[in-house]
Amino acid sequence: MSLSLDRLHGLESLEQETLSGILDLAEHFKRVNERRVKKVPALRNVLIVNFFVENSTRTRSSFEIAEKRLSADTLNFNAKSSSLSKGETLIDTARNLQAMSPDILVMRHPAAGAPALLAKHVDAAIVNAGDGWHEHPTQGLLDMLTMREHKGRIDGLKVAIIGDIAHSRVARSNIFGLTTMGADVHVAGPPTMLPPGLNTLGVTAHPRVEPALEGADVVMMLRIQKERMGNDLFPNDREYFRYFGLTPERLTLADDDAIVMHPGPMNRGVEIAPEVADGDRNVILEQVTNGVAVRMAILYLVAGGGQMTQER
Amino acid sequence: MSLSLDRLHGLESLEQETLSGILDLAEHFKRVNERRVKKVPALRNVLIVNFFVENSTRTRSSFEIAEKRLSADTLNFNAKSSSLSKGETLIDTARNLQAMSPDILVMRHPAAGAPALLAKHVDAAIVNAGDGWHEHPTQGLLDMLTMREHKGRIDGLKVAIIGDIAHSRVARSNIFGLTTMGADVHVAGPPTMLPPGLNTLGVTAHPRVEPALEGADVVMMLRIQKERMGNDLFPNDREYFRYFGLTPERLTLADDDAIVMHPGPMNRGVEIAPEVADGDRNVILEQVTNGVAVRMAILYLVAGGGQMTQER
Amino acid sequence: MSLSLDRLHGLESLEQETLSGILDLAEHFKRVNERRVKKVPALRNVLIVNFFVENSTRTRSSFEIAEKRLSADTLNFNAKSSSLSKGETLIDTARNLQAMSPDILVMRHPAAGAPALLAKHVDAAIVNAGDGWHEHPTQGLLDMLTMREHKGRIDGLKVAIIGDIAHSRVARSNIFGLTTMGADVHVAGPPTMLPPGLNTLGVTAHPRVEPALEGADVVMMLRIQKERMGNDLFPNDREYFRYFGLTPERLTLADDDAIVMHPGPMNRGVEIAPEVADGDRNVILEQVTNGVAVRMAILYLVAGGGQMTQER
Repeated sequence: MSLSLDRLHGLESLEQETLSGILDLAEHFKRVNERRVKKVPALRNVLIVNFFVENSTRTRSSFEIAEKRLSADTLNFNAKSSSLSKGETLIDTARNLQAMSPDILVMRHPAAGAPALLAKHVDAAIVNAGDGWHEHPTQGLLDMLTMREHKGRIDGLKVAIIGDIAHSRVARSNIFGLTTMGADVHVAGPPTMLPPGLNTLGVTAHPRVEPALEGADVVMMLRIQKERMGNDLFPNDREYFRYFGLTPERLTLADDDAIVMHPGPMNRGVEIAPEVADGDRNVILEQVTNGVAVRMAILYLVAGGGQMTQER
Repeated sequence: MSLSLDRLHGLESLEQETLSGILDLAEHFKRVNERRVKKVPALRNVLIVNFFVENSTRTRSSFEIAEKRLSADTLNFNAKSSSLSKGETLIDTARNLQAMSPDILVMRHPAAGAPALLAKHVDAAIVNAGDGWHEHPTQGLLDMLTMREHKGRIDGLKVAIIGDIAHSRVARSNIFGLTTMGADVHVAGPPTMLPPGLNTLGVTAHPRVEPALEGADVVMMLRIQKERMGNDLFPNDREYFRYFGLTPERLTLADDDAIVMHPGPMNRGVEIAPEVADGDRNVILEQVTNGVAVRMAILYLVAGGGQMTQER
Repeated sequence: MSLSLDRLHGLESLEQETLSGILDLAEHFKRVNERRVKKVPALRNVLIVNFFVENSTRTRSSFEIAEKRLSADTLNFNAKSSSLSKGETLIDTARNLQAMSPDILVMRHPAAGAPALLAKHVDAAIVNAGDGWHEHPTQGLLDMLTMREHKGRIDGLKVAIIGDIAHSRVARSNIFGLTTMGADVHVAGPPTMLPPGLNTLGVTAHPRVEPALEGADVVMMLRIQKERMGNDLFPNDREYFRYFGLTPERLTLADDDAIVMHPGPMNRGVEIAPEVADGDRNVILEQVTNGVAVRMAILYLVAGGGQMTQER
């Protein structure tokens, strides 16, 4: 199959066939990453700018490693110390970057919709590395790759996503991708953390954690932003853990072979008990490993490699 | 013509033939940057240290892209977090860098004359990326390249430079380069922003903006440092815009084909009206594009590539 | 001789033959660094992560240059701005890095023993770039290389190390390496800066500087952390200089051909007089040059290059 992708702003608009094709290609790159020589010349002479307006050493490093494995040239453009703080608008900054002719712009931004806005002003292919509460599509893809590897399929899986759904781009990208792929998605969290309109997204929302966990094949715990605690959303860490934390007891509600996922970094004792965080059901490090493979696949595709896919 | 350049501290000392040769070579690299494969092996195995003692994501990125396009190895040495803040002197830091045998040192420093000072202590070729209020020679060159592309020549052009001339290394490098190339340079700004002795540099100074603009082929607006406003230099943004801002009306004073330049980032509504900033006369993004090409030319030359130029 | 090294946590456990072998290999790489083309393809396709949880532009740059000279791919992972500040534990962060399959982890950390702790959790070869007050082994090696170059041997040399021995990882690595190599190590400093148990390390401790200097072949001055002054350790800079600073007069106590070393950056007028700091006896910049060569040797070895050494 020839796969074509000229950008990645989110998973909302991607069809099942495209999602499957990306995961297939990511699996190929995962095998490359298991070789002694992990580097391929695929993106030689391609310049990728990592344009991060929000700090994220982990995601940036995962992208940067993916870029280097593909032999691309990389430039880290951290906008904290740049002209944005001198009052330049985002569009001006992006146009300036564009004027230096990068091939791909990997961008993270605190505002939802920033990649879509920029795409109107720059020619470089834009890969969204997280935009506000909107989407974090490569995270959604790496989560789906991890599920597919463990369960052999995504279609028909019961996936429970627990936590602050309303403020989670990770949850949104997973919801879009998983429902497209035919999973049965259940979310749970305190009412203040459940956005309105969840049912229109094709997911089932629960104000308690237990029904979401019941019989789940996959349990995905979201990171609780401690800075939100003690405000209007939830009284404190202890209360949160008491009602929503993933304890060994609660995990018994899920399927016997259920896997435990987390986008990291984990808050032990807040959203997840230490025994579960370090238990043998969790696949958290596989998620990280898959992140590099998924990002290689996306960068390869938006650089125009999809047409060559079938000849591989 | 064989062109030789062993450093670039400023444009003040460069002769017309050298300036023309640099611009010719930059045009060559600009064509390279328009190809699908933008990378050339010219500086393979060359190590370039970007030694920035002052933040500048834009200029640093432009240099870094130029370096990568030439296949050089790059090291970013940001002295904010380095030994300089532990009290090490600039010369000690530079000697340390030198002891690691880089081939080229691209440096930005808040003190005028820092590159010339360091050149006495290190062997690496020094390229000035901006030193205090002294010079910003690659900016001057990219501006001249942009003018030459649009006007076919520099000799005889009327160039108006508007703003805080006294504190602008961009203005100084342009003045040195443009007068050497035979342009008729006019500057305008509030008296507090015009340095003494301008006439000895071969430029005409005006305390009002209109006579500078009259019939100009090129209008270059300088960025107003907002932090200088409200001090002794000028009362406030609004007053500045009223007397010196480039409005559509004022622009009619210039030649019908005049181009509008700005080193970026722009303060819309301070030195330039939004309609002009986003109008079709401005060539601001071309300046950015030309910046990469000019920096490739300079790095190529100081690495010793000039002798090979004629064989290209 | 075939030399094998799978990590470098410190010099304490290395035998004389290994230390000699590393220095021999470093000399080889030093000659490479004196060529016009300083780059070798030895570590092509190898990914090295510089994992720095403590700022150190100089050491990081030296490692990064060594890595680029060996054609490795490099990733700078600065943990200040990373998940560590979000409360992630060091081990979680390291496991995450490991999940991205780097080949070598160069790490600096404010806690003694951090590299040894991580080695239990990650597969990548760990090279210690300084851990708290414990060790800074590549610094010890570059110091030893510098001594051997100047004196033709290490065995039997009298080496004086002056300063805050108790809080110096540089001193500790030198003490371990030098005593293994047969040097006669003397340390001197105020009693508050001499740790207990020095005699069990095989060194002679002096509360005054003069007996340590007497007849010394090598005088190594440690950097005084100004932030420790005025506390309980020592009254102030001036007092320190009066009793322990290396003045031209004091230097006459050492051997006529003694060399003066310092890990940099120097505090002129605190631990060293300006005339000595800039005098012809000091070899401080040679230490920096040797740092790149020593780091190339270590990275080459831990990447598995040692088996190939004899064929060079």
